[in-house]
Amino acid sequence: MIKVSVMYPNKPGARFDHDYYRDKHMPLVKARLGEACKTYTVDKGLAGGAPGAPATYVAMGHLYFDSADAFASAFGPHAQEILADIPNYTNTQPTIQISDVKA
Amino acid sequence: MIKVSVMYPNKPGARFDHDYYRDKHMPLVKARLGEACKTYTVDKGLAGGAPGAPATYVAMGHLYFDSADAFASAFGPHAQEILADIPNYTNTQPTIQISDVKA
Repeated sequence: MIKVSVMYPNKPGARFDHDYYRDKHMPLVKARLGEACKTYTVDKGLAGGAPGAPATYVAMGHLYFDSADAFASAFGPHAQEILADIPNYTNTQPTIQISDVKA
Repeated sequence: MIKVSVMYPNKPGARFDHDYYRDKHMPLVKARLGEACKTYTVDKGLAGGAPGAPATYVAMGHLYFDSADAFASAFGPHAQEILADIPNYTNTQPTIQISDVKA
């Protein structure tokens, strides 16, 4: 299983509508990716590791697929529509990472 | 539910023993934190979002607790032992984030 992590940096001036992200954007993504996307999770950044430190990411979404190819095949045809929705909830540019889920 | 994400940057010269991390370090953490740690996951970074881009993090661990206080109470007494094990699998300094799991 692989995980696609979409991580939104917590920079000064960052705007992020957590409700829109959870209630509109991620359901849209799941609907378009269909069964290829096994499940997903949504995080709201609370704090960093050191006392009083801010979270590195204001929010993160993690989506699970059987393989990187399964993700690419499912995402490609809908990339334009999904990416066009991002300004509706944030002015930040996400960092994206694909990971192998080892445990 | 909150999630503690421990993210190891993928920098030039980064050393990371994924097997030790999954088979030794994380089980040690779980054993010390006990029931306060509901579950955990381990990721191995494969790639970034752009074609050919490296993963931002060489590895990530995510641990789940009822609250940030539950994490702090469970981690504090064992922090020294847990942190002392880090050089056994990596020469990198992790970025830590606490998130609220919204979905």
